[in-house]
Amino acid sequence: MLKVVLIGSGKVAKHLFDAFRLGNVIEVVQVIGRHSESLRHFDMVSTNLIGEDHVLDADIYIIAVSDGAISEVSRSIKNSERFVVHTSGSIPMNVLSGHNRRGVLYPLQTFSSERAVDFKKIPLCLEAKVPKDLKLLRKLALSISDMVFEIDSDQRKYLHLAAVFANNFTNHMYVLANQICEENGLPFEMLKPLILETAEKIENHNPLIMQTGPALRQDLKVLKMQSDLLGTGTRAALYELISKSIQNQKKL
Amino acid sequence: MLKVVLIGSGKVAKHLFDAFRLGNVIEVVQVIGRHSESLRHFDMVSTNLIGEDHVLDADIYIIAVSDGAISEVSRSIKNSERFVVHTSGSIPMNVLSGHNRRGVLYPLQTFSSERAVDFKKIPLCLEAKVPKDLKLLRKLALSISDMVFEIDSDQRKYLHLAAVFANNFTNHMYVLANQICEENGLPFEMLKPLILETAEKIENHNPLIMQTGPALRQDLKVLKMQSDLLGTGTRAALYELISKSIQNQKKL
Repeated sequence: MLKVVLIGSGKVAKHLFDAFRLGNVIEVVQVIGRHSESLRHFDMVSTNLIGEDHVLDADIYIIAVSDGAISEVSRSIKNSERFVVHTSGSIPMNVLSGHNRRGVLYPLQTFSSERAVDFKKIPLCLEAKVPKDLKLLRKLALSISDMVFEIDSDQRKYLHLAAVFANNFTNHMYVLANQICEENGLPFEMLKPLILETAEKIENHNPLIMQTGPALRQDLKVLKMQSDLLGTGTRAALYELISKSIQNQKKL
Repeated sequence: MLKVVLIGSGKVAKHLFDAFRLGNVIEVVQVIGRHSESLRHFDMVSTNLIGEDHVLDADIYIIAVSDGAISEVSRSIKNSERFVVHTSGSIPMNVLSGHNRRGVLYPLQTFSSERAVDFKKIPLCLEAKVPKDLKLLRKLALSISDMVFEIDSDQRKYLHLAAVFANNFTNHMYVLANQICEENGLPFEMLKPLILETAEKIENHNPLIMQTGPALRQDLKVLKMQSDLLGTGTRAALYELISKSIQNQKKL
């Protein structure tokens, strides 16, 4: 079995931990975190002390902490021969430059404590400096997911940016739709079938083909009317800019 | 059975027609459209002639044509005692003012010719001037959908606006994500599980609670880096404005 030390006790660490435990390829020998409170999720050996003295031996050290803390945490693993990976979309592999054997295991998914996820369907993006470490990482990744990709630091930056549009910005559209409903005494429930259909539609179709609506139709009357309904402010500015962007898209 | 004349041969007319035929409450006695080509979908009596001479007797006349044509089409139904409804989200009921018995049957869903839809899960928004016509419309609606709502013209305007955010704008986020993938040799397939999870997450949770990402975290380093990746132009302006809107949201 591959021995893993997991550093971090947030959402990514928890979901990885649960996924590893479902299979019989990975043994998590240690979980290290700063917050003893959040370490309760891990019903096994865990410690809130970080530093070389406390780190157990393992094949892979996975740093699943916030972007800003990766570098510092990696430096606390003093033995530079240890294979250390982080899980961030936007941070290059070389932030781990203190370790010759470095890599990245980036799960392209949005995690929340409220929802279980099926790791088999989560794309895992791998990168490693040393070829034999890439093999090791691939073995680990394939044990929990059916979607494993090799993506370098530069591509991953763009992938993470695309994910911001597909996930964070999309969710913000839901937030604004919800807000408009609430302000007008309309149940947000009414929009849920539409939201699901919009997402399911692109499973088999290019989103460009699936675009509909007043902006695409250049329906100036509806565009003017809806813009007036929003008045002024950021929401109105957003309506105009996204509508403009859809109209530009049409010309491509 | 309720007799229906369907006017229009586009996506909404086709999906309504198919839904009516599945039940045994509605009998479509006639389909009227201008394009003989698209009338082929309707394997029954249909005509491409419009005008009172050709209109058969029915309980409800459903005008499922583009927003701009509703008024003209309604005027071609000369008998002002006929119960006439349109299917538009953004047009008020009173565009049908030539008919005392007027109403609206607005299906809150995005239709495409490529995908079948389960009408049972499509919210139908009803409005009628005459109370007994509302009862008639409700009977028709309940025969094809489990989600029937009474929504007046003013509320429907806002509902349609919310739907533009939840559907058209969301789909445009997919378009931009796809574009970023294509420009960087990344398969768009990788984003599909994320897109589905983002939509499914809000089935049981307020989207405000589900918001994640660099803008929400006020992660200025990532925001600056991603904005730089986009350069200038509409896409970069969108990135900044949506990120700003998410940050505003946080303060609410």
